[in-house]
Amino acid sequence: MSEAEWTDIEKKIARTAFNQAYDREVEALLKQVREQASTLVELSDLWRLHDFLSARRYEFEGKYDYQYSVLLFVFAGLIKEGWIDLNELDGLDKDKLSKVAALARM
Amino acid sequence: MSEAEWTDIEKKIARTAFNQAYDREVEALLKQVREQASTLVELSDLWRLHDFLSARRYEFEGKYDYQYSVLLFVFAGLIKEGWIDLNELDGLDKDKLSKVAALARM
Repeated sequence: MSEAEWTDIEKKIARTAFNQAYDREVEALLKQVREQASTLVELSDLWRLHDFLSARRYEFEGKYDYQYSVLLFVFAGLIKEGWIDLNELDGLDKDKLSKVAALARM
Repeated sequence: MSEAEWTDIEKKIARTAFNQAYDREVEALLKQVREQASTLVELSDLWRLHDFLSARRYEFEGKYDYQYSVLLFVFAGLIKEGWIDLNELDGLDKDKLSKVAALARM
């Protein structure tokens, strides 16, 4: 799906939902790390935190990829993981919405 | 310098000083990470913490190498960085002590 298939209104909706998901996941991650950090007792706890951050960083860098060609897949993933709800994409055309919904169920 | 050149008493002194340095550095690192974690505000702060942990982990794994062949160098480094004081090695023979002192000044 190319950028040309997205209207300006759809782009705005998509960008808002994308940013929302991003902000929520960042917030949750920050909270989780703060909590984990407050319980650090020994060196192995630190390296566990390091491993955790390595994994999340890798995951984050791959996941938040705002390209129209993959955006429906990205949204489906974000819905699956609970960062956005399908209804936050209301306003996209029915075809896009049903594709996202179907992908999110897979 | 081989293990044979260390008396049992010297080994005990060395092991104690080594463990002291290790415990102090771990404690300082844990404190530093707890503090850094309490000020996390955005994702870039997290990745900065991750970079910091990557560097410290690499450094730690190389540094705390308890082998008699390199122990005088290890102690010199630990003194230089302030994790132990030369007088915590009192009881090692004069030759070892002066080597460590000289290396620590380099």
